[in-house]
Amino acid sequence: MHKWASDLFPLNRSLTGRGTLETLQYLQTLMPGFEINSIESGSEVFDWTIPKVWNIEKAFIKNMQGEILIDFANSNLHVMGYSNPVDGLFSRDELLEHVHFLREQPDAIPYVTSYYKEDWAFCMSLGQWETLGNGPFYVLIDSHKDDGKLNYGEIFIPGSSKQEILFSTYVCHPSMANNELSGPIVLAGLIQELLKKSDLHYSYRAIFVPETIGSLVYLSRHLNYLREHLIAGWVLTCVGDEGPLSYIPSRLGDTYADKITLAMLNEFHPDFKAYSWFDRGSDERQFCAPGVDLPVCSVTKTKYGEYPQYHTSLDDLDFVTPRGLGQSLDFYVSIVNLIEANRTPKINTLGEPQLGKRNLYPNTSIKNNQSVRQLMNIISLLDGRHNIKEISKLLLLPEVEVLQTIEILHKNDLLS
Amino acid sequence: MHKWASDLFPLNRSLTGRGTLETLQYLQTLMPGFEINSIESGSEVFDWTIPKVWNIEKAFIKNMQGEILIDFANSNLHVMGYSNPVDGLFSRDELLEHVHFLREQPDAIPYVTSYYKEDWAFCMSLGQWETLGNGPFYVLIDSHKDDGKLNYGEIFIPGSSKQEILFSTYVCHPSMANNELSGPIVLAGLIQELLKKSDLHYSYRAIFVPETIGSLVYLSRHLNYLREHLIAGWVLTCVGDEGPLSYIPSRLGDTYADKITLAMLNEFHPDFKAYSWFDRGSDERQFCAPGVDLPVCSVTKTKYGEYPQYHTSLDDLDFVTPRGLGQSLDFYVSIVNLIEANRTPKINTLGEPQLGKRNLYPNTSIKNNQSVRQLMNIISLLDGRHNIKEISKLLLLPEVEVLQTIEILHKNDLLS
Amino acid sequence: MHKWASDLFPLNRSLTGRGTLETLQYLQTLMPGFEINSIESGSEVFDWTIPKVWNIEKAFIKNMQGEILIDFANSNLHVMGYSNPVDGLFSRDELLEHVHFLREQPDAIPYVTSYYKEDWAFCMSLGQWETLGNGPFYVLIDSHKDDGKLNYGEIFIPGSSKQEILFSTYVCHPSMANNELSGPIVLAGLIQELLKKSDLHYSYRAIFVPETIGSLVYLSRHLNYLREHLIAGWVLTCVGDEGPLSYIPSRLGDTYADKITLAMLNEFHPDFKAYSWFDRGSDERQFCAPGVDLPVCSVTKTKYGEYPQYHTSLDDLDFVTPRGLGQSLDFYVSIVNLIEANRTPKINTLGEPQLGKRNLYPNTSIKNNQSVRQLMNIISLLDGRHNIKEISKLLLLPEVEVLQTIEILHKNDLLS
Repeated sequence: MHKWASDLFPLNRSLTGRGTLETLQYLQTLMPGFEINSIESGSEVFDWTIPKVWNIEKAFIKNMQGEILIDFANSNLHVMGYSNPVDGLFSRDELLEHVHFLREQPDAIPYVTSYYKEDWAFCMSLGQWETLGNGPFYVLIDSHKDDGKLNYGEIFIPGSSKQEILFSTYVCHPSMANNELSGPIVLAGLIQELLKKSDLHYSYRAIFVPETIGSLVYLSRHLNYLREHLIAGWVLTCVGDEGPLSYIPSRLGDTYADKITLAMLNEFHPDFKAYSWFDRGSDERQFCAPGVDLPVCSVTKTKYGEYPQYHTSLDDLDFVTPRGLGQSLDFYVSIVNLIEANRTPKINTLGEPQLGKRNLYPNTSIKNNQSVRQLMNIISLLDGRHNIKEISKLLLLPEVEVLQTIEILHKNDLLS
Repeated sequence: MHKWASDLFPLNRSLTGRGTLETLQYLQTLMPGFEINSIESGSEVFDWTIPKVWNIEKAFIKNMQGEILIDFANSNLHVMGYSNPVDGLFSRDELLEHVHFLREQPDAIPYVTSYYKEDWAFCMSLGQWETLGNGPFYVLIDSHKDDGKLNYGEIFIPGSSKQEILFSTYVCHPSMANNELSGPIVLAGLIQELLKKSDLHYSYRAIFVPETIGSLVYLSRHLNYLREHLIAGWVLTCVGDEGPLSYIPSRLGDTYADKITLAMLNEFHPDFKAYSWFDRGSDERQFCAPGVDLPVCSVTKTKYGEYPQYHTSLDDLDFVTPRGLGQSLDFYVSIVNLIEANRTPKINTLGEPQLGKRNLYPNTSIKNNQSVRQLMNIISLLDGRHNIKEISKLLLLPEVEVLQTIEILHKNDLLS
Repeated sequence: MHKWASDLFPLNRSLTGRGTLETLQYLQTLMPGFEINSIESGSEVFDWTIPKVWNIEKAFIKNMQGEILIDFANSNLHVMGYSNPVDGLFSRDELLEHVHFLREQPDAIPYVTSYYKEDWAFCMSLGQWETLGNGPFYVLIDSHKDDGKLNYGEIFIPGSSKQEILFSTYVCHPSMANNELSGPIVLAGLIQELLKKSDLHYSYRAIFVPETIGSLVYLSRHLNYLREHLIAGWVLTCVGDEGPLSYIPSRLGDTYADKITLAMLNEFHPDFKAYSWFDRGSDERQFCAPGVDLPVCSVTKTKYGEYPQYHTSLDDLDFVTPRGLGQSLDFYVSIVNLIEANRTPKINTLGEPQLGKRNLYPNTSIKNNQSVRQLMNIISLLDGRHNIKEISKLLLLPEVEVLQTIEILHKNDLLS
């Protein structure tokens, strides 16, 4: 996974444009069946409008000696996202109105965007700003905004049930590794694991969208479908560092996604960090907005905003490690396993099934038969309301025995 | 308000007739928009029939010397409500069968009615009965019952929401001050306060009906509407004395009206007196009847039946004071203020609204922005289920800040 | 009741056949209105198929001296239920494959059936087996399985309500007294008590079915009806010994049947034994199966499987006593009494009824009238959600007074 991150790191992702499309095309090579979908710029999506497509050819600040002081080629963070083109001479004071740096992090280039207001700016470290000289400066941003398409990726893995699990991540941040490359990369890893399984009960869906606007596009196209089919979903972001797992609940806080997450974290990661809905910040904002309220929460490693490298050039491929990525992948694989095991099967006969004719029952009744009693007890709990964990607890049976029984009943067409 | 009570005190109110109509006409002068509605006598209303219109011209008991011993002109309590006409000579024993007095309150004229059974009677103090002489007596009641109309008053004050608050009081008791003049009078005062407000969120409705039969008429005409729009209601009665506030719950006990009432009483009137539903006795009997079950409770000063003057000539304009009336008005005004502040607004976009295009969001995104976070957190709670108090508590923000934000969103057409 | 048990004891009951039909015909003589219904063998019932009718003319094991060693005429437990015919010579070893005995209960003939798999067997005590000799043996079972009918009994006692109470018991076990003769016998006694009552509020239904297949037949024919009308039901079995009362809950555990049962047991039989749903074993298995979920539980004396005589020849008319049968009958009679008293009546007017026109209200209103207040309070609780016990508690009134009021309102057509 770290290799994928290195490959994708240099691309200039944004809400739209070549860098995002190339990222999606790279992801497509990792996941057979991955589709790239799009929506025209100018389209209305709920309260929003799809922006034009932004691309940038080159950008730099030169001094009067023709020396390049700041070069977009060195870091695509140097130009504010969605900057308008500019070409001209600026005094130091004039330039300052179009420069972002962080006084508290003098070595970091901050990540800044202005998607919906026309403007331009350079971003640099405080150190760079201080050593830039007195000017005047020749400033060039060769960018353009054109009608075109906002793209996003989607892959669907059908299981035997039409009920779905959703994973969502985003592909709109330029060269930063934890927020955001770790998200699409761990999700690609998870999808590869799911594609290996041939016996999935639930169907799985993963989407790779530009943050906010992309999830709104997806919701606007599929909200009714999701309302009907989605039983749990997760937003993957900041899953590449080595910090502890962190949980950001859904807005309602008690969806099936929250329950599964807390069950897993409490049992296997008791040192996890719990945040409030009010600490949220990614696409769960849209999935859980009032009136949408899908069962979606988020599990990160160190949460966005909680590590100093966040939204700066310091969020790089050293901060994100193979070990950190692997821990996140393991966690999401275990979530899938728990969901698969935790389904609530339902017997499809009215009254008890006749087990004898299926050779599931001793045909001669005689006093005491514990294995028959156990079988009948499991069947009596297959009402679509008890999951396997609960049945196991109620009957004091190992989960694996319950699962074996379920499997036998399934093969005998006794489950709906 | 006490002046209004003095003006209305002498009128001979009953379920129907001139005294009630004149009372409604007087109230009309206090409240622009107040309508007088009616229903024909003989109409069927749920399990009931609208009685004929009762009027009385004069009534007295004379001795054989032509001396007037008891005169309806002195107190309209002297004649039992809905008494049939009578004109004749009666011995003391014969008269006794048509006289009501109270042995335990020898100075009080009791208030007695016989709406639905044909009869006649005089009511007097025990003292009057004892000094009436030996008779025979010449007895005249010049009353008549005619086809006509039962009248009631109604005023509607629209707010920006179609959800309604109802206040109900009654106008069928003759010369008694706490039960009932205090009810229509405090309600008229409350309506005057509401008419001054230009920014009501909820709509408000007040009805002035003959007790029991009038509320049944109103329910029979508007029950479905009330079921759809009413979120809370109160019956105003016995709100003119200086006793502590008293709370009579709705039948179900946990309606929004009960919750608002208890919140207010517990916080600002901890000495209030709590009664049970089984102590009820006014029109909440109809509003809360099984199958009707509207969210209506009642707050009185000293509850009907709990003060000795109740339903006698002692319930007069000395027992009801300007201070007592004012305390009740203050209470109901504070109830309105709490309801208005306590509404549960709902964002009208699916997904988050785009705040940038409304200049509610810094157009350039950069690390950390607490005021934006606060705004987004408030928005995320505008799901129509959280009221302003709750939002304020959840976010540790002063209520006024939440209200300011709500106001801004409202002006931007972002609330439904 | 013990006399009835003696009469019925020798009959060779099974799922079908003469012994079961004769049992139903005997029960018919005890309960006027008792109907015998039937279903053709071969019919499909949910997941099951009705078996052929099994009858047996005679059966024995003889030694080579012509001496009868085991004779079906001595005990109908000697032949496994639904045994195929056999006629031939068998060595001791060959016979052993067709013999059932219990090592741990050497004096008991076990009760064994093979309804759905073709086979034959003899059942005997270990003592009998050990003294049978070396063989060879001449073995005869003169049985036959024919197309025909599976029979069951049903009686319906209408009350003034269409809501029903169900009692179910079974009639498929040959000569054993507690499991099962006690069930049909106590139920016959209960029905005789119900037939004596002329003022039942609820309707009562009792069914006498072959276990499992019979209740499935009944459910397949009447499930929608039961869903609509059944408010509580009980399975009667093992109700003839002198052990403590035992409670087997419904699958969901909180149906009205469970509540009534626990209220009765906790108050009057605090020494009762509580089992779990996972200890169930009779027709509540079908009545409470997932998706059926009728409100049915079971109260036994010593539960099936919990006494050593269970399913052997030792479960005889000494183990079941007149006292034990009487205790069970008393319990079920008290259940009926509690249900009858515990109904939840509902007033049929919107708003309060006009009591005056029905002479239920003093037509002249005057201060204080406790009996009217009590009447109005009772009416205000007749919302179909409060039962008589609850009304009695809420109003601190004796239950009998509440019932009297209910009766008066009922006679005035004021209850739905």
